[in-house]
Amino acid sequence: MKACIDIGGTKVAVGLAPAGAKPEILARQSEPTAKTGTPLALSEQILRLVDAACAEAGVDPAQVQAAGVSSAGPFAKRDGCIELVTPNICGGLAGPARGLPNDWMSVPVEAPLARRFARLRVENDCVAALEAERRWGALQGADHCAYVTWSTGIGVGLCVDGRVLRGKNGNAGHAGHSFVREDAQALCGCGNVGDVEALVAGNAIARRFGQDAAHWLGRASQGDAQAVATVDDLCRVLGRMLYNLVATLDLERISLGGSVFWHHRAYLLPKLQAEVLAHFPALTQGVLLQPAGLQDRVGDFAALALAPD
Amino acid sequence: MKACIDIGGTKVAVGLAPAGAKPEILARQSEPTAKTGTPLALSEQILRLVDAACAEAGVDPAQVQAAGVSSAGPFAKRDGCIELVTPNICGGLAGPARGLPNDWMSVPVEAPLARRFARLRVENDCVAALEAERRWGALQGADHCAYVTWSTGIGVGLCVDGRVLRGKNGNAGHAGHSFVREDAQALCGCGNVGDVEALVAGNAIARRFGQDAAHWLGRASQGDAQAVATVDDLCRVLGRMLYNLVATLDLERISLGGSVFWHHRAYLLPKLQAEVLAHFPALTQGVLLQPAGLQDRVGDFAALALAPD
Repeated sequence: MKACIDIGGTKVAVGLAPAGAKPEILARQSEPTAKTGTPLALSEQILRLVDAACAEAGVDPAQVQAAGVSSAGPFAKRDGCIELVTPNICGGLAGPARGLPNDWMSVPVEAPLARRFARLRVENDCVAALEAERRWGALQGADHCAYVTWSTGIGVGLCVDGRVLRGKNGNAGHAGHSFVREDAQALCGCGNVGDVEALVAGNAIARRFGQDAAHWLGRASQGDAQAVATVDDLCRVLGRMLYNLVATLDLERISLGGSVFWHHRAYLLPKLQAEVLAHFPALTQGVLLQPAGLQDRVGDFAALALAPD
Repeated sequence: MKACIDIGGTKVAVGLAPAGAKPEILARQSEPTAKTGTPLALSEQILRLVDAACAEAGVDPAQVQAAGVSSAGPFAKRDGCIELVTPNICGGLAGPARGLPNDWMSVPVEAPLARRFARLRVENDCVAALEAERRWGALQGADHCAYVTWSTGIGVGLCVDGRVLRGKNGNAGHAGHSFVREDAQALCGCGNVGDVEALVAGNAIARRFGQDAAHWLGRASQGDAQAVATVDDLCRVLGRMLYNLVATLDLERISLGGSVFWHHRAYLLPKLQAEVLAHFPALTQGVLLQPAGLQDRVGDFAALALAPD
């Protein structure tokens, strides 16, 4: 039996799954992410939710010896163990202006959970989603691939030569914070001005264009000229990020998910695909963009894909 | 005894090196790159140069059972073997306008050389340079790193989690053909408009600004205001590419070489370092840019670093 732990800026969800290869969740418990008390409050909350999920499923907690943790990033390492330095959780990073009820600079996750679970793997949520898509979704059989979420933010998980990329602190895949054009207006939550996330993420669309992504995508798919132009430009920015990933890493396939993309995937996918194929044929020829094979359940199975048997 | 083979658009160089860990070349032979006859002319030329190097060094050619090949890219694969689809070698790619004396669409390298050498490794020249810098240069001990050449073109070799990245056709590292700003003027040899190489590579500087890199860098380091502004903008573009690599791959160290960079490294390095550190501290803090530890001999040792013992 293994625990699947999702840590987001808004909520924490814990599921229980049987050992084995099937994507199957037996019980699920969730709560708003703990943000008060000491930074250990979050790992204590997680362990409490694991016990609650065990009670719900009628499982002896001692049987749960493995866990996968899929978390919002970025990460830092202390003594080799991953801690969260996530702006939506750690109030000390941006100071009181951010309005979080704590002054945490980082949140230990790997060290406290390793005391509870014999086998543990902690990854960025998009790395976790990539693992799920490689195991059960649209990236099966692809050794050179990415999972990209177009949602409130922009997240990326990367795999090259059959190996998932982690980087010095487990932060590989933060391409949402890369630059593909000059823009002196759009401020990102990370402090960058004009990075991809600041230009096209769900929260950026509302901020830049006065109405949310659903508004613009709905209008554009009905042919409204102003909306088409707006969405075309969003696709140009995200498409250039995708092309940059292909050129930098020689990828063969990209799976896409996330709330902004998912609801209008039929409209968006050809535009993104065209942007990638518009450049350097020797690198892009045959590169395939696909909707997430796990559909809108990628997130549900992300932590499960990490949990060792 | 092993052969070290460098394939460039202008010349082919072959060296002989003893087995073992030291960077040492016994004999070196080079010729202008073969570009007439059949596409096999290049591998035939290489084998002839190996024999000539053996004769020069007084070595029995039968003793040379291993080879490393460091080549200009990009690559394609046919039946799993690397072929070159290099615009400066294959005249068929861009058509007669390019003025090459052949109509080759690709050049087999791995398959014909594998018939001669029992142990063979073929890589992009920047991947090879990365291996050399990791073994003997400024990237020793770095598991998350890049080698970047700022020369006639822009090339990148990448290593994440201690493993050198190759990609589906061995083309990982073509970040010189990524986009960091919108530019509708600068045409790249690959057909892209406004990619990094089109904006800042040695050949692009001359084309865009009327004088070559040496002119602008010389003037800028003497304080000429117009040249300082020009070079600052070049560093902004290349620095954004370096930052994008750090954000995408969570790198810890980048080694830089290449003719444009090397002659003015003391002037350029702080500007590039500042551009990287100007963004998203959680990802960039502590990231170090360094001049190539092998200095201007990176290219000499690149193929040697690939050759299996």
